[in-house]
Amino acid sequence: MLQTRIIPPAENAHDTPLLLKRLLLSGIRYEKTREIVYRDLVRYSYATFNERVARLANVLSEAGVKAGDTVAVMDWDSHRYLECMFAIPMIGAVLHTINIRLSAEQILYTMNHADDKFVLVNSEFVPLYKSIEAQLTTVEKTLLLTDEAEKTADLGNLVGEYENLLAAASPRYDFPDFDENSVATTFYTTGTTGNPKGVYFTHRQLVLHTLAEASVLGSLDSVRLLGTNDVYMPITPMFHVHAWGIPYAATMLGLKQVYPGRYDPELLVQLWQKEKVTFSHCVPTILQMVLNAKAGQGLDFGGWKIIIGGSALNRSLYQAAKARGIQLTAAYGMSETCPLISCAHINEELLAGSEDERITYRIKAGVPVPLVEAAIMSADGKLLPADGETQGELVLRAPWLTMGYFREPQKGAELWEHGWLHTGDVATLDDFGFIDIRDRIKDVIKTGGEWLSSLELEDLISRHPAVREVAVVGIPDPQWGERPFSLLVLHDGQVLDAKGLKEHLKPFVEQGHINKWAIPSQIAVVTDIPKTSVGKLDKKRIRTDIAQWQAAGSAFLSTL
Amino acid sequence: MLQTRIIPPAENAHDTPLLLKRLLLSGIRYEKTREIVYRDLVRYSYATFNERVARLANVLSEAGVKAGDTVAVMDWDSHRYLECMFAIPMIGAVLHTINIRLSAEQILYTMNHADDKFVLVNSEFVPLYKSIEAQLTTVEKTLLLTDEAEKTADLGNLVGEYENLLAAASPRYDFPDFDENSVATTFYTTGTTGNPKGVYFTHRQLVLHTLAEASVLGSLDSVRLLGTNDVYMPITPMFHVHAWGIPYAATMLGLKQVYPGRYDPELLVQLWQKEKVTFSHCVPTILQMVLNAKAGQGLDFGGWKIIIGGSALNRSLYQAAKARGIQLTAAYGMSETCPLISCAHINEELLAGSEDERITYRIKAGVPVPLVEAAIMSADGKLLPADGETQGELVLRAPWLTMGYFREPQKGAELWEHGWLHTGDVATLDDFGFIDIRDRIKDVIKTGGEWLSSLELEDLISRHPAVREVAVVGIPDPQWGERPFSLLVLHDGQVLDAKGLKEHLKPFVEQGHINKWAIPSQIAVVTDIPKTSVGKLDKKRIRTDIAQWQAAGSAFLSTL
Repeated sequence: MLQTRIIPPAENAHDTPLLLKRLLLSGIRYEKTREIVYRDLVRYSYATFNERVARLANVLSEAGVKAGDTVAVMDWDSHRYLECMFAIPMIGAVLHTINIRLSAEQILYTMNHADDKFVLVNSEFVPLYKSIEAQLTTVEKTLLLTDEAEKTADLGNLVGEYENLLAAASPRYDFPDFDENSVATTFYTTGTTGNPKGVYFTHRQLVLHTLAEASVLGSLDSVRLLGTNDVYMPITPMFHVHAWGIPYAATMLGLKQVYPGRYDPELLVQLWQKEKVTFSHCVPTILQMVLNAKAGQGLDFGGWKIIIGGSALNRSLYQAAKARGIQLTAAYGMSETCPLISCAHINEELLAGSEDERITYRIKAGVPVPLVEAAIMSADGKLLPADGETQGELVLRAPWLTMGYFREPQKGAELWEHGWLHTGDVATLDDFGFIDIRDRIKDVIKTGGEWLSSLELEDLISRHPAVREVAVVGIPDPQWGERPFSLLVLHDGQVLDAKGLKEHLKPFVEQGHINKWAIPSQIAVVTDIPKTSVGKLDKKRIRTDIAQWQAAGSAFLSTL
Repeated sequence: MLQTRIIPPAENAHDTPLLLKRLLLSGIRYEKTREIVYRDLVRYSYATFNERVARLANVLSEAGVKAGDTVAVMDWDSHRYLECMFAIPMIGAVLHTINIRLSAEQILYTMNHADDKFVLVNSEFVPLYKSIEAQLTTVEKTLLLTDEAEKTADLGNLVGEYENLLAAASPRYDFPDFDENSVATTFYTTGTTGNPKGVYFTHRQLVLHTLAEASVLGSLDSVRLLGTNDVYMPITPMFHVHAWGIPYAATMLGLKQVYPGRYDPELLVQLWQKEKVTFSHCVPTILQMVLNAKAGQGLDFGGWKIIIGGSALNRSLYQAAKARGIQLTAAYGMSETCPLISCAHINEELLAGSEDERITYRIKAGVPVPLVEAAIMSADGKLLPADGETQGELVLRAPWLTMGYFREPQKGAELWEHGWLHTGDVATLDDFGFIDIRDRIKDVIKTGGEWLSSLELEDLISRHPAVREVAVVGIPDPQWGERPFSLLVLHDGQVLDAKGLKEHLKPFVEQGHINKWAIPSQIAVVTDIPKTSVGKLDKKRIRTDIAQWQAAGSAFLSTL
């Protein structure tokens, strides 16, 4: 380490650690009367919000929660979740956001693995909780969250119901200072194999992530994405990477916030209209559902700015959203990265180019946000050129990446092999600084000795006017190693078979965009494509389905 | 300290320290072709900027600069200064920004005190430098900065001329990682008594300051103050608190930057027009000069957003700027605070109120930015209520305050007495979170047993239509302890005497805004009010002048 100049602080000097409480205290200074809204059920001001966070801190402390303890939450997106996102870390405890879309068995695994001591359970999840309660090894107490009139439930060691407890607690809490490297949050991410793995983020990491995110969303697009007069509504779950950190940024800036509970597209559109929402974030699948929602038919969504991530954005979805007035901005991140890594930015050169070229860049993963370093790496750990052509695994460094997997030293060391966080994504980096995700390493199709990007093929297939949704996976092929297989959902009344798809793709082969092995020799038209718990294409499940269909000789398979 | 959960990083995990190099690397990813402009002399792209920073790092390293060494710069605001703001700290050295408005004796003191080893001297300052050269105790080498054809100067141990050296150096430098708590910058602040004191800021502090500043300027006003398409031109010197940190924020976001050299109002207006400047920062004095500039007469400054700080903003100046199309936003900070502490924010409640009330808040010091904690303190170290009424010394905590004065442990401990940084400003804090600076502690006028704010009185006097500039100080009075004395500059052709001023102030006494002792019993109409090296009213000098005038019985004093 370089011998730089480091000066010990003067006597009496107080340094300010980067703690989440600072974000809460910032928002209320800006906007004391701004509203936090939960569906059509709850509406209160930032002043009340701050008091409720203090009340919750008192409830938890009195119930015995100590610094370092893990407190788990099983809830849909709500004002109560937002309160937990502050109160639990602010008393020095660790918030475990339970992924309620996992199987009961996986949830049980994560709760025992995370050492959950206290659990806040939404009444809708009481049956789920009861089904695993007997096998929970560390939980000492429970709290009930409910919108129902019934304020109790058959939960073991129930301290009480959230609202009743808050009402009885003091609205003042002297939140302490502590080490900014204290873990604030944890949650579990599922891979293709093995048990879910726990990522974790410190106060310092979350504060830095919030500041960088706010800087970028406030300043980087020619239309400001996030500003003081925006109204924020998440459309990705709060249990999934802190709803991309936006609740923290929105609170720091004092924005109006609208929490929709679960992600029913009809409800989302109604809330968007009623609360005048202007800023959201979601994955492509749910955006498609929102565009299709009955409540939104005939509505112009003008003024709605949406950050889209989680999986690759198709040109056709971008254009469909744009036609409805929505301004989409692609972003990239993952559970391990807190999550924000990059965000589309149309620079001066691109602004001078064609609309078509701008869209090409608007739907890419974007440019790394400040403090993030991105590179691409070969399988043997060498950094590869950022020339827009060379593909390799996207690897990252940044001040807000998980520094391992909880209690999994081996997997943590693998995640960080060669001193860079491995994303598992194949990408290129270009001269504009843009990350272009080509595929998941495990979803790349190895055909005829070449790598074929399933994402690129999905993008080309999505341009066919009959296609509403598409998934491409590689399936074993004795001659070519693998061949692409395409699963399609078509627009109402449309038809498409393998031959028709080949006709559509031929020009791209002729123009050299893809080679001829990229044309699927078999497709299946279905009504629904399997998704993971966070709305991504479930390619593991798709591969299993295809194998079963092929074994059964299903009639709806269309072969060249 | 609370026993929170702290998890050691996994094997191979790499943490990213907060270093200034990250800001430079961010800007070029966003905008490779955006321009950095120096007057009408130099114009280059971010790509060239990054290469020149690397070239400068090579020049300095080859000249013998080591991590921990102090490298001083004597320059007007230039692209070269911007390069120094990155290259010097990025090699682990400390940048000393010399205040070239100090006396030669003070400059000599600061250079010896700061242990300057290398000095970059603008050719305009060569005579000044020569006048102190023999007494410099630590300087080993010099570099010449010049716009002239003559590329050498009679400087001791001259390594060479900046441009020639850069041209010969490699455009690549592998900037190392090091401890984020390394000192990056230092400069000296002058108080009322004693020698200048050295403040210092670390890489971590400057990065955090940049992120918080960008968040606030991007998101907080209903008109975005700083966004990707803004064109930035400083109108406060880069030697003074890093030009308020905006060069760092502008670079991080990839904005076009325009550096004007020295602050000639005619030149500023010409550059504003030619380069399409949209964002600046300055102190009230120079804004007044810009408004009066001949080059700007008849021009509409519409679209020019200016952050104003350094001293209190008058309502009349706010309105004069607004009438010319300038959007002013008041901000507050000082040398010890990096500097940004607070920035005006018109919240939802104020937006619903009258224009007059909004202006009252627009010209206050503003709301603390995220991560800043502000309080007011009594003389005996007690925190006082934030009720908008109670006055006390404004004290601060934040992650970017100087942690002492260099080599002045006693003064550092006093700055931080009771664990808060003492600003020396008397203020109130109100329910909206607004800081309202009432006065410098040393400028408060103690009259008739009460504290009278010289700033408040200046504001009321400035509302008189004949008044162009005003300064109020307390002068000794045998009966009342002190009485206010007002120094005035009038608009062309206007007259005003002590009686006329009394008539103007009477309604404010009757309405209870001020008590009757606040009416100056003596005033002086002058052509120019003395200012400090950074453009603030020089009240120390004003008091001396008044005492001399009174002793001489000067005829231009007007007495009630």
